[in-house]
Amino acid sequence: MTYCVGMVLDRGLVLMSDTRTNSGVDNISVFSKMFHWSVPGERIISVMTAGNLATTQAVVSQLEERTKAPDERDNTLLTAPTMFQVATEIGKLLRTTIADCQAANGNGGKGRFTASMIVAGQIAGMEPRLFMVYPEGNFIEAGLDTPFFQIGETKYGRPIILRGYDRSMAFEDAVKLLMVSFDSTLKANLSVGMPLDLMVIGREDFAPTHQRRILADDPYFNAVSDGWGDALKQAFHALPSYDLSGG
Amino acid sequence: MTYCVGMVLDRGLVLMSDTRTNSGVDNISVFSKMFHWSVPGERIISVMTAGNLATTQAVVSQLEERTKAPDERDNTLLTAPTMFQVATEIGKLLRTTIADCQAANGNGGKGRFTASMIVAGQIAGMEPRLFMVYPEGNFIEAGLDTPFFQIGETKYGRPIILRGYDRSMAFEDAVKLLMVSFDSTLKANLSVGMPLDLMVIGREDFAPTHQRRILADDPYFNAVSDGWGDALKQAFHALPSYDLSGG
Repeated sequence: MTYCVGMVLDRGLVLMSDTRTNSGVDNISVFSKMFHWSVPGERIISVMTAGNLATTQAVVSQLEERTKAPDERDNTLLTAPTMFQVATEIGKLLRTTIADCQAANGNGGKGRFTASMIVAGQIAGMEPRLFMVYPEGNFIEAGLDTPFFQIGETKYGRPIILRGYDRSMAFEDAVKLLMVSFDSTLKANLSVGMPLDLMVIGREDFAPTHQRRILADDPYFNAVSDGWGDALKQAFHALPSYDLSGG
Repeated sequence: MTYCVGMVLDRGLVLMSDTRTNSGVDNISVFSKMFHWSVPGERIISVMTAGNLATTQAVVSQLEERTKAPDERDNTLLTAPTMFQVATEIGKLLRTTIADCQAANGNGGKGRFTASMIVAGQIAGMEPRLFMVYPEGNFIEAGLDTPFFQIGETKYGRPIILRGYDRSMAFEDAVKLLMVSFDSTLKANLSVGMPLDLMVIGREDFAPTHQRRILADDPYFNAVSDGWGDALKQAFHALPSYDLSGG
């Protein structure tokens, strides 16, 4: 499995992903699921991936034109005029990559080669934007009502984001919120694993404002993980008590 | 979908279930998923169900022998000597009910008629026990390491139980914990719905110590739901802040 979250804030974009891939619980590996391309001062585009690793790596390689000889490369992500066109291009690559693999396998095991992606970024003169791209190649964009997207193992970590997210929050608080959400998910699903990749993209920065790999022994992550249990207990005790005699 | 939780405490057993059944989001109904049978002073057996409603109702009807004429009824749940044998009997009925329905439908749509159950209770002279019964008819029993079972939409409400559960907790706190867990689930999955059914079974009580249907406008549930958002915010702020410059 996988867990990735992308959120839009007033201040910009925050992305976090795990790095565990697995083919059965007895075969796990570490692969980055977060990628970015930027033109300093002009654009930054970041992609997070979930699903079949061969599919997502094939799409990222095609995005980077690593399928071509160096002097023929021309990364369309760096030239597309809008984020909408970036998402369209990624959707098209994702859909055709899945379709090719399915066709090559006699259309058997439908769904086996599937994948989905979160695309986030900003191009100069336009707003930061966040998209969720489906295996079918189409996509949705985050708005005021639903300002974040999750892919992979989305359920364990969702309630705290629903409760804690605030569009006007500081990047520091958004990172803390994501750490709590990832901690809950890591505790419940072995197929989501450390290390985590974090990227903060400030509005008009057109480059990663902050980027970090959070390792298994990260002191801040451990402080959040340990502290959250105690903090929850206090929160829980602050709630009114149930009256058993009231039934 | 469905959400049911059963937990073992030092003081006894606590059970909670939702009541929503659905066949598509445009076809929802209210059905109880919690049942119990008791012999005052001697035993209480409670069952919660998830899965195909026709299957679970058929199993419960057979448990109550409602398939027979009144003077031929002889509820085996009330005569089985141990909770293990109760769980075995329920597992057998569940497996054969599913198998019959699948066979009658040409073994098509495998999984369509599936269901699972949580069985909880105590028989005089023995400990309170808690089982999870699978569609295959086999079952597992809760122990010190895993002292609660969930069925249905288990993920959204799991992290708070993992953090908040304590075997020595009071019934009042256990009910509060379940209300928080159900609130998170209700907020995230429309196919889990109010009202909720609650039952507390005190050790050596051999009857429901406390039983209640929690309606959509329940003042305590609303106080927990509203208060939890604020309490979480305070808990969240109590955690150390992330340092963006540390990357």
